[in-house]
Amino acid sequence: SSCLLTPSASPGAAEDPVDWTVADVASYFTAAGFPEQALAFRTQEIDGKSLLLMQRNDVLTGLSIRLGPALKIYERHVKVLQQTHFQDDEAFC
Amino acid sequence: SSCLLTPSASPGAAEDPVDWTVADVASYFTAAGFPEQALAFRTQEIDGKSLLLMQRNDVLTGLSIRLGPALKIYERHVKVLQQTHFQDDEAFC
Amino acid sequence: SSCLLTPSASPGAAEDPVDWTVADVASYFTAAGFPEQALAFRTQEIDGKSLLLMQRNDVLTGLSIRLGPALKIYERHVKVLQQTHFQDDEAFC
Amino acid sequence: SSCLLTPSASPGAAEDPVDWTVADVASYFTAAGFPEQALAFRTQEIDGKSLLLMQRNDVLTGLSIRLGPALKIYERHVKVLQQTHFQDDEAFC
Amino acid sequence: SSCLLTPSASPGAAEDPVDWTVADVASYFTAAGFPEQALAFRTQEIDGKSLLLMQRNDVLTGLSIRLGPALKIYERHVKVLQQTHFQDDEAFC
Repeated sequence: SSCLLTPSASPGAAEDPVDWTVADVASYFTAAGFPEQALAFRTQEIDGKSLLLMQRNDVLTGLSIRLGPALKIYERHVKVLQQTHFQDDEAFC
Repeated sequence: SSCLLTPSASPGAAEDPVDWTVADVASYFTAAGFPEQALAFRTQEIDGKSLLLMQRNDVLTGLSIRLGPALKIYERHVKVLQQTHFQDDEAFC
Repeated sequence: SSCLLTPSASPGAAEDPVDWTVADVASYFTAAGFPEQALAFRTQEIDGKSLLLMQRNDVLTGLSIRLGPALKIYERHVKVLQQTHFQDDEAFC
Repeated sequence: SSCLLTPSASPGAAEDPVDWTVADVASYFTAAGFPEQALAFRTQEIDGKSLLLMQRNDVLTGLSIRLGPALKIYERHVKVLQQTHFQDDEAFC
Repeated sequence: SSCLLTPSASPGAAEDPVDWTVADVASYFTAAGFPEQALAFRTQEIDGKSLLLMQRNDVLTGLSIRLGPALKIYERHVKVLQQTHFQDDEAFC
């Protein structure tokens, strides 16, 4: 129970993003250093299930956030959370 | 006559989405838990034939709905309705 | 001289869309049941030559028309007119 | 010195679009019958080097010009100028 | 220590774009002849790490800059900086 991307700042949150609420998603991005962008995820009502469905372009243009942080949020967080989630279908992390 | 995605909330609706009216489409999404987004489908005049022609990006950006629900509406409903419809051309469901 | 998609409502129009004027294009879509959208084609100055160059996304987002009718206009008309035109290069219809 | 697409209306312009100034590009499209759209090229500061880098979607959505003329400008001019330019790297025209 | 694209105008800047701050990125584009567009990179909070993640469409539509300069900024700078950076993982330049 120590997977890389568990939002340590929200200990009550489920470990697998698929179970995160909209509030958990926002907490995750606030803890990751993107408090302003976390608000945009909340405004767009993105919970863990939706987060796992997001593609690069959705993050860059669908959230109305600045391009610099958006590029990092996708590459370092959304993409990695998705890879971890879909790997976990086959193996423990 | 018990296919998975028949809109049970609107018993009068035809079973195959291709025959749904704009009102049937809106009823389907209201029953599926997306009453607010159902209005957007109605505003854009989307009947069953149009629904079967929608691609991911059309749902995400063409309806002016929030990104979180849009992602689920496409993955869990539009895509599944299309798969069921086009499978039915070959087999009973 | 009885090809499927000749705009029967505008008997003066040339049979091959490549020769349609902006007014012929608008007449075609009015006759096809899309009078409101016909105006958008006229506003965007789309004659037959431009019509034959349109791709799916151009119809869906470049005309500022509602998504439902746009999906049908592309699938049932623009795409079919283009197929008919480019087939005609090889055979009579 | 009689290549197909040299802007005959601006005899002072270099023959290869790569050397055209923003004013040469605007003159070319004015001479080609698109005076209104020529202004958009000028507003977007498109010189010959930029013109050779333009893709279909850049012409259709990046210039804020009407869709009908945009489709023709791309197919009959931008695309052809690029083909001619890149062919000329290998052969005289 | 004489790689092609080091921003000579900002001698204090790290040589590898991955280490550039938002200010370094802006200095680079100012020195490259795009002072106005440098402001847009700053507004979008693009540091070196984000710069290395940018795709063509991000530069053309995500910065709200004119199309002509945007096309050159992508082809001559962003793309080249990325190629140099990712080559450097394997060899000294």
